[in-house]
Amino acid sequence: MPDDTLLHFEDMPPGTVFPLGPKHVTADEIIAFAMEYDAQPMHLDAEAGKQSILGGLAASGWHSCSMMMRMMAKSYLLRAAAEGAPGVDFVKWKKPVLAGDVLSGETRVLDGRASQSRPGIGILHLRHELRNQAGETVLESENPVMVRLRNPESADI
Amino acid sequence: MPDDTLLHFEDMPPGTVFPLGPKHVTADEIIAFAMEYDAQPMHLDAEAGKQSILGGLAASGWHSCSMMMRMMAKSYLLRAAAEGAPGVDFVKWKKPVLAGDVLSGETRVLDGRASQSRPGIGILHLRHELRNQAGETVLESENPVMVRLRNPESADI
Repeated sequence: MPDDTLLHFEDMPPGTVFPLGPKHVTADEIIAFAMEYDAQPMHLDAEAGKQSILGGLAASGWHSCSMMMRMMAKSYLLRAAAEGAPGVDFVKWKKPVLAGDVLSGETRVLDGRASQSRPGIGILHLRHELRNQAGETVLESENPVMVRLRNPESADI
Repeated sequence: MPDDTLLHFEDMPPGTVFPLGPKHVTADEIIAFAMEYDAQPMHLDAEAGKQSILGGLAASGWHSCSMMMRMMAKSYLLRAAAEGAPGVDFVKWKKPVLAGDVLSGETRVLDGRASQSRPGIGILHLRHELRNQAGETVLESENPVMVRLRNPESADI
């Protein structure tokens, strides 16, 4: 049975902004992710990080994306009629995410349209941005997300 | 001291192909990643997955990217003079990655150039593709990766 309390496509018009974070990034979780998925020295060891371009113990870029996903889930996706995403338009890792950083930012709905191929589904084009405690942008990304329509028969989609 | 045994920029010319995988994807690791980073029902529960567009217990797209990163590390990055990546050009999650899938594929070097802003660094443009045991492409991505030059003074870069 459809859950009317969930955010549907129509509840997230262009211009809608959802806050992300704050998220405190610890050395332990940077190292844990790296040991599992990205065991390059600058993600495992503070000294190796200092000697690298990144300048310190730095999160794997995919870890930063995964932390962003957790912030998105907490902020809006877990209370939305979301059906996943077909991909990511781009990710820019603009600055290293270092142990001790506190990340926050927002997702902005850029536009939305009904899916051509999937009845009852709308596609939202989202822009995500994360900044560190100094206000420096560390991550920018955009991607399409599938969300169920509240009124699939509505003519104004 | 530089490690001459590492793969440097000059050792990875356009056309170079590195194999990825095979990687057997288990339900346990799909759920573990989801609980940490992407707790949407289709990534946590087989029944919810079946009722979703994804058709079964499906890995978070970011989990698929992270698994690909692990395959890349194992195949070539951990033996390369790699200095991280500025971002990702795109990711296409073309098919769901389901519990029990076996993923394999390859990274292909599309082109390379010396960094304009970072002396001693070359930038390789890489294309990654993962397929499941049925030969269906599940993930496509391209991104630039920074790798140290073996001969920074070489005129033919």
